[in-house]
Amino acid sequence: MNLALAQSTDLDDENRRDEARQLRGRIRSGEHDGLTTGLAPGMVQLNLAILPQDWAEDFQRFCELNPKPCPLVSMTDPGNPIFPSEIGKGIDVRTDAPRYLVFRNGVLADEITDLSDIWQDDFVAFGMGCSYSFEEALVAGGLSLRHIEQGTKVPLYISNMETTPAGPFKGPTILSMRPFLPDDAIRAIEITARYPRVHGTPVHFGNPEMIGIDDIMQPYSGVPPVMHKNEVPVFWACGVTPQIIVEHAKPPICITHKPGHMLITDSLNTELTD
Amino acid sequence: MNLALAQSTDLDDENRRDEARQLRGRIRSGEHDGLTTGLAPGMVQLNLAILPQDWAEDFQRFCELNPKPCPLVSMTDPGNPIFPSEIGKGIDVRTDAPRYLVFRNGVLADEITDLSDIWQDDFVAFGMGCSYSFEEALVAGGLSLRHIEQGTKVPLYISNMETTPAGPFKGPTILSMRPFLPDDAIRAIEITARYPRVHGTPVHFGNPEMIGIDDIMQPYSGVPPVMHKNEVPVFWACGVTPQIIVEHAKPPICITHKPGHMLITDSLNTELTD
Repeated sequence: MNLALAQSTDLDDENRRDEARQLRGRIRSGEHDGLTTGLAPGMVQLNLAILPQDWAEDFQRFCELNPKPCPLVSMTDPGNPIFPSEIGKGIDVRTDAPRYLVFRNGVLADEITDLSDIWQDDFVAFGMGCSYSFEEALVAGGLSLRHIEQGTKVPLYISNMETTPAGPFKGPTILSMRPFLPDDAIRAIEITARYPRVHGTPVHFGNPEMIGIDDIMQPYSGVPPVMHKNEVPVFWACGVTPQIIVEHAKPPICITHKPGHMLITDSLNTELTD
Repeated sequence: MNLALAQSTDLDDENRRDEARQLRGRIRSGEHDGLTTGLAPGMVQLNLAILPQDWAEDFQRFCELNPKPCPLVSMTDPGNPIFPSEIGKGIDVRTDAPRYLVFRNGVLADEITDLSDIWQDDFVAFGMGCSYSFEEALVAGGLSLRHIEQGTKVPLYISNMETTPAGPFKGPTILSMRPFLPDDAIRAIEITARYPRVHGTPVHFGNPEMIGIDDIMQPYSGVPPVMHKNEVPVFWACGVTPQIIVEHAKPPICITHKPGHMLITDSLNTELTD
C-alpha cells in the first residue's frame, strides 16, 4: 500500500507516464473502450473490484490473507471514487477503466463503460496487481511466454488450493500456467520474487495432480497449452480468483473491470518491486 | 568483491564475529584442526584454492565466467598471504584454515595443517563462497534439508553442464542436490536468489537425465538420497567444481582446503546478500 511514485528523472519513464495519462484520458472520454492488453507498456495495470462498504471490510481482510491471488495495490475511501495519489493523479474509478461488469446478487447484470450513473456513496474500490506487470518483467529478463508466442490467452485452472476465508469470501485459488524448461522456470521464479504486489512467485510447478488439476490439457479458461519436451508447467495465483470469489459471495452489487480491460495507473512496473 | 563489513551495532552479530575470531585463533595455533561444519554459525566460510601467479590469472577469469560454481568472494595479492580486510582483519591463508590438501601436477601429495613452510612468493589465494551460507538461510527460512535431517553429507553429482573454459581450466559442473516439494523448492529458489556469492539459485530441478545424471541413486559423492513422494530433486552448482577442475589442469602446485575444513571469515552470511 506504500506505492509511492518515485520522482523519476528518466525521460523514457516520464514519457511512459504521459502516454498512460493520455490513454486514460481517452478511456475516460469514451474514445477508447477496448482491451488494454499491450497498451501503456511499462505501466502498472490493475484488476478492479468495487463493493459496498459493509462488504468491503471482509474483502480487504480477504486480500490481506491471500496476497498471492489478491495483491492489493491501492483502495479508495468509502464513497470517494478517486484513488489515492500513490497510483496516479486523480484516477477516477467510475470512468477510468474501459469496461465494467456489474454483478447483482452474484449474477452478471450489465456491461457498461461508465459507472457514474450507478455510483453509490458507500462504494469502496480495490485495485489489485495484475500479471501483465510480471509478464513484462519476465520478457525483459529474456524469457519467452508461450501464450504470447502463440497469440492465445494464458490458460487458467481451478486448483484445490483453498484461499484463506474472510467473512463471505472463500473458495479455490485460480491459477495461470506458463510452461518453461527447468532453468527458465528458476529464472522466472527469481524474477517474480521481486514482484510480490503482482502475484509474486509461483505457487506450484510440475505434477498438476498435486494441486487438483486432473488434465492440464483442459484448462478452465483459455486454450489447451502447447508444451514442449522437458518443459514443466509453472503455476501462478491469478487475479481471476477474487473476481470469482466475489461473485460467489453474492453481494447485492459488485462491479469488476471486464477481463483484459484494466485500470491503467501512473505507476511504473519497475516501481512495484520490493 | 565489494564485501564491505557492515558497521553492525547488533550485539548478537558482534558476538558472532568475536566467536569467529576466537575460533580462527584456535585454528591458527593448531588447537583446532578438525571440521568447521556447524561451527561459527552465521559466519561466512570460504572454499580455498591457492595457485602460482602464472596460473592465477586464468583461474580468476574462470571464476568470473562461472560465478555459480565458483563465486569468488575475495582473493589475495600475489605473494601476500593476508586476505583483504573486506572479509576480516588479518586473515592469513597460510594458517587460518584447519587442514589443506597439496596437489602437485594434479596429484594429491600431502595433507597439512599449516602452509608456512611451503608458501611461495608467487602464490595467489582465492576464497569462494560455500553452500553452508545458503543452507543456513534456507533453514532460517523454515525449510528442512534432507541431508541434515538424515545426518549425512549432501549428495554430489557430475553433470553434463560444461563450465565456460579459461586457459587450462575446464570441465563439467559438479552439482549438489537437495529434494523439496514444489512449493518448498520455489521458496528455496526465492531465498537463494538473494545469495549470488554463495552459488545463488539452483541450475536445475526435476528430470536428472536432462543434465546427464543417469541414476539419482548413485551420487558421485555422498550417500544415495532419501526422496519422499512428490518431491523433486533441486540441483545447485557446487564448490567442489573448481577444486576438481584445478586438479585436472595439473598445475605444478595447487593447494585447497580439505573438504569441510573451511576458512572462517569475520563476515556475516547476512552480509552476503545482494
